Amino acid sequence: MLVVMQRLASDDQVQQVIRKIQELGLTPHPLPGPTRTAIGITGNTGAIDPANLDGLPGVMELIRVTKPYKLASREMHPDDSIVRTAQTSFGPGAFPIIAGPCSVENEEMLLRTAEFLVSRGIPLLRGGAFKPRTSPYSFQGLEHEGLRILRKAREATGIGIVTEVMDASQVDDVAEAADIVQIGARNMQNFSLLKRVSLCRKPVLLKRGLSATLEELLMSAEYVLAGGNRQVILCERGVRTFADHSRNTLDLSVIPPAKELSHLPIIVDPSHGTGRRGFVPPMARAALAAGADGLIVEVHPDPDRAMSDGAQTLNFQQFDQLLDSLRQLAAPLGRQLNPRPAT
Amino acid sequence: MLVVMQRLASDDQVQQVIRKIQELGLTPHPLPGPTRTAIGITGNTGAIDPANLDGLPGVMELIRVTKPYKLASREMHPDDSIVRTAQTSFGPGAFPIIAGPCSVENEEMLLRTAEFLVSRGIPLLRGGAFKPRTSPYSFQGLEHEGLRILRKAREATGIGIVTEVMDASQVDDVAEAADIVQIGARNMQNFSLLKRVSLCRKPVLLKRGLSATLEELLMSAEYVLAGGNRQVILCERGVRTFADHSRNTLDLSVIPPAKELSHLPIIVDPSHGTGRRGFVPPMARAALAAGADGLIVEVHPDPDRAMSDGAQTLNFQQFDQLLDSLRQLAAPLGRQLNPRPAT
Amino acid sequence: MLVVMQRLASDDQVQQVIRKIQELGLTPHPLPGPTRTAIGITGNTGAIDPANLDGLPGVMELIRVTKPYKLASREMHPDDSIVRTAQTSFGPGAFPIIAGPCSVENEEMLLRTAEFLVSRGIPLLRGGAFKPRTSPYSFQGLEHEGLRILRKAREATGIGIVTEVMDASQVDDVAEAADIVQIGARNMQNFSLLKRVSLCRKPVLLKRGLSATLEELLMSAEYVLAGGNRQVILCERGVRTFADHSRNTLDLSVIPPAKELSHLPIIVDPSHGTGRRGFVPPMARAALAAGADGLIVEVHPDPDRAMSDGAQTLNFQQFDQLLDSLRQLAAPLGRQLNPRPAT
Amino acid sequence: MLVVMQRLASDDQVQQVIRKIQELGLTPHPLPGPTRTAIGITGNTGAIDPANLDGLPGVMELIRVTKPYKLASREMHPDDSIVRTAQTSFGPGAFPIIAGPCSVENEEMLLRTAEFLVSRGIPLLRGGAFKPRTSPYSFQGLEHEGLRILRKAREATGIGIVTEVMDASQVDDVAEAADIVQIGARNMQNFSLLKRVSLCRKPVLLKRGLSATLEELLMSAEYVLAGGNRQVILCERGVRTFADHSRNTLDLSVIPPAKELSHLPIIVDPSHGTGRRGFVPPMARAALAAGADGLIVEVHPDPDRAMSDGAQTLNFQQFDQLLDSLRQLAAPLGRQLNPRPAT
Repeated sequence: MLVVMQRLASDDQVQQVIRKIQELGLTPHPLPGPTRTAIGITGNTGAIDPANLDGLPGVMELIRVTKPYKLASREMHPDDSIVRTAQTSFGPGAFPIIAGPCSVENEEMLLRTAEFLVSRGIPLLRGGAFKPRTSPYSFQGLEHEGLRILRKAREATGIGIVTEVMDASQVDDVAEAADIVQIGARNMQNFSLLKRVSLCRKPVLLKRGLSATLEELLMSAEYVLAGGNRQVILCERGVRTFADHSRNTLDLSVIPPAKELSHLPIIVDPSHGTGRRGFVPPMARAALAAGADGLIVEVHPDPDRAMSDGAQTLNFQQFDQLLDSLRQLAAPLGRQLNPRPAT
Repeated sequence: MLVVMQRLASDDQVQQVIRKIQELGLTPHPLPGPTRTAIGITGNTGAIDPANLDGLPGVMELIRVTKPYKLASREMHPDDSIVRTAQTSFGPGAFPIIAGPCSVENEEMLLRTAEFLVSRGIPLLRGGAFKPRTSPYSFQGLEHEGLRILRKAREATGIGIVTEVMDASQVDDVAEAADIVQIGARNMQNFSLLKRVSLCRKPVLLKRGLSATLEELLMSAEYVLAGGNRQVILCERGVRTFADHSRNTLDLSVIPPAKELSHLPIIVDPSHGTGRRGFVPPMARAALAAGADGLIVEVHPDPDRAMSDGAQTLNFQQFDQLLDSLRQLAAPLGRQLNPRPAT
Repeated sequence: MLVVMQRLASDDQVQQVIRKIQELGLTPHPLPGPTRTAIGITGNTGAIDPANLDGLPGVMELIRVTKPYKLASREMHPDDSIVRTAQTSFGPGAFPIIAGPCSVENEEMLLRTAEFLVSRGIPLLRGGAFKPRTSPYSFQGLEHEGLRILRKAREATGIGIVTEVMDASQVDDVAEAADIVQIGARNMQNFSLLKRVSLCRKPVLLKRGLSATLEELLMSAEYVLAGGNRQVILCERGVRTFADHSRNTLDLSVIPPAKELSHLPIIVDPSHGTGRRGFVPPMARAALAAGADGLIVEVHPDPDRAMSDGAQTLNFQQFDQLLDSLRQLAAPLGRQLNPRPAT
Repeated sequence: MLVVMQRLASDDQVQQVIRKIQELGLTPHPLPGPTRTAIGITGNTGAIDPANLDGLPGVMELIRVTKPYKLASREMHPDDSIVRTAQTSFGPGAFPIIAGPCSVENEEMLLRTAEFLVSRGIPLLRGGAFKPRTSPYSFQGLEHEGLRILRKAREATGIGIVTEVMDASQVDDVAEAADIVQIGARNMQNFSLLKRVSLCRKPVLLKRGLSATLEELLMSAEYVLAGGNRQVILCERGVRTFADHSRNTLDLSVIPPAKELSHLPIIVDPSHGTGRRGFVPPMARAALAAGADGLIVEVHPDPDRAMSDGAQTLNFQQFDQLLDSLRQLAAPLGRQLNPRPAT
């Protein structure tokens, strides 16, 4: 249920509705908007009797939310959400690019990459300090030393940091080092971790699981939103199918329904999505054309020597060419690449 | 194995190589190119002894073809193929659009649609006369009456016809009425039908099966090519996965590997691929950006009254809007919409 | 809609109902049962007004059929169907085994296999004369010579023949040679072929397509039933998923819902389903335990020299061991292996 | 690499090999067997020079392990592993059944269920205290109160406890209350959690992820084994495919390859695997026939009032019928239902 307040409703009236919701044993979620405030309600098992709320002063209308996800749904939040960092913002008309190596390997490489990206106007650097690896014997990331290097790259260049968190015990440290905290595909339904990042103050980049439906992705976003963190960016990164022409099957077809059902921005990872360097540029362009709100792309000074994921990583020159082609497509699609943060 | 002839090789020399291949019990496939002729060889179960061919006059080099598909592979035919109809051509730099209703319903509707499309420069009209339907109780198409109406639309407007053939007994009639003969997804591995259309003189539009790998799609194309019909257009139209956000999962990620492995043009069907009208325009734009060589789109004067597939069909106004947006993207992507036939 | 006649309804009364249905422009399907006759109705696009039929003499009740498949549904035919050949029958309490090589390779091999199978009480011999092959360059079967050899094996040993038909032009010849006509997985939605075999007098073994839902399998069965051939056996033979531990993913979980929704017998092909000889016996036993109504298994005197599918084919000794283990499980599961035909 | 010691090798000789492995910077994993000890080696990035180990006293042979999983592979451990609890054991010839409600709901219900199960000889009780739920608004389990109730059921009846752990912070408490600690399908690649449970002293039941390949399942088992916990039981519980005839697609076909590639026991969860009560008994019987090493089944005194998963849960009478039918199949398959612990 969504309670929409009148344009001129006072703060007191809003507070009165919130208290009434709490008295009913339910959870209010105030959603301030440009012209009016709305208050989402969760926690009900059945329908809520409208009589409880309809007559309160300042209430304009009550809207029933039909989807199992509430705060993530467009029903409750008809306008596109804008997710901001200090460097850029994700939302309508914007197309920020997150780029960088799969793993943080050493300080020299990461700084070199950060400087290159900043020189191209890229606002956000990706790089894994904690790495989820299928094999216990594979390189598991530099861990806290990796976070230190990421912080250093941020200090040296001003670029924002996007890095993954793998369990609750790392959330504080990762959130302190990062501008955006990433939840990996394999943890999309690690509900303990979702609850924990819902308490942190940084935007969350939530990657779609390898066999997650769109509804499940939105339900996982709902965990973060319901915990109080409204800054969620969805990410399509390839799903698992019978097809064997690429490492995963990058499912761009999820973008239009995601934007229909939810107000959250959704970006695309063509690097993991395809697993092949040569397929990244056409799929990155296709993501932009399909209506995605940004990209996360693997870039490395020397991909063939990367400690992980080299085969799907662009070098600097290839990344420059991709950037050129995206720039030409952005204008007719009504998008601005790597905008400054929205005010 | 591919025998590449010298630039100045004479016709006699080409004929001599062909005879030699036949003497070895194998099948020669002459592949004339702009500057030289090559001769593909199929029919061998093991490796061919190069000594048999290497010394013949006019032979420049022998190339081993490693893929199970031979004539469809880029190894045998490094340049992109161009598939021509009287109205347009499919190939590098081109982006023809095939549009029209799912089924031929009646003469008036089809003519009205054909006139509309011609007024927008669309070269090819789609429309099913023989309809593959999951249920034996569903409308199965107007059959030969449908072919008559399609011929009439062609005569009245000059638009080319793309229509499906469902079994061998229909091939002559369909090929006579059509500019492009379509093999539907459910028949992609109907090998009897593939062999039969390999003998017809019209280009073949081969739709990817619902769970076909790229290699299987190319092997099915190989059936047509090996039978002597070199005019094959591949078509991605959505595959079957766990995802439920659209009717099928439109797999645009198959386009870059298809173009890497094969010289055949590949187009996209965003109507069947998504099953939802609102998802067609963004996925059509994404197909163009991903490198597809054209589109096949469902358009109907009044989609909500269409006899089949109404939910995924654009009306004329929606199609106009799509066309506008494709036009703006085509130039930066180096494509020309609906070109006149290549010479 | 299903019209259930009274127990003592006369033939005239049945005929009167049939004529009335025809007058309504619909198709009647008389379904004689042990105690009473029912008449299925298809061809209606909306609901049928019960008033048209309810008052006719001899009519007991009218039952609405809610599934898109009608004749295949348990709603119209609550009892399990029994499909008979001269050698055995498929249905409740029975567990016939069809065995033999993937392809008919030569007369000597086939006769040897037939004699071995008959000595073990196996009622039906499988063997492909027309082979659907992914590659146009692979062995396509002995074709009519293969049919001749199959007929010879039948004459020599009395074993029944199960062999595949690939297109309409072969149906008469295949149906003449075979006791059961097989539709392969790749042709499950070759609707022209389904219509054609619906006219033949032999039972049809309909294999599930590689990505067919249960409803689609039953709709394809409906094509055969609606055309007048009531002798349909379903067959699970592995579907296509992300899993790579076997060639296909044998989906035994389809058996309980198939038996809930339909009265048709369903058998299992563990050879194609797994693609690995060593996995065939445990999956064959699991099929029996899951409630399947029979098996189709690849057996060859010398699998490592088989012209196709050798890796998934049992030799005679391995088949004997499998048979032993099935025999021990059949009794507690209430099944009889390879019964004589039901009367 | 696996170092196999001679039968009569002394402890000193074993220790000398272990020290040598450590000196090489690698990790030794002593694997004592009935007649001889073997020592697995992990941690190497390339091949190990055999000269380093071959000449040491007591060494019989060196075996290269070709799979990416080492300790989980049959190459390193040719005999089937036996996983023991105080109540029963999982391994060759055994078929223990774990049964109980989806969630621990209250003390009365759980005790009643435990008493019923004990009266039927069932050694292990399942019941979730921490519940992974797709929606943040669904019942999340009784948490620590649930653990208390489980401990009480164990004390009152002697039945063993199987319950899920969702994050690292719960591992100590869950391991204290449980005889077997369960990792759910959604956490199969929660590598932080796998590392944490590798340090606990209780057997781990590792459920296959919804789109996990067999190799990925074994790699996740390897995380637990490599951390020092050798007591791992694999569990097939349904995967995600295009098929819609049941909630998941129960993949019994994974059992034969799992037993070929690994020595670990593998059990089946037909309740989650099918999502439908009526499909549980046939699939449970099929699991036994396919070679599974046990079952985990949902049973509840009143499934229609269960707080979660009621539709897939058996009542006591249905469970009794299932048990009867399993008993009749166990003997011919060489399995003993619910054996006492192996010595």
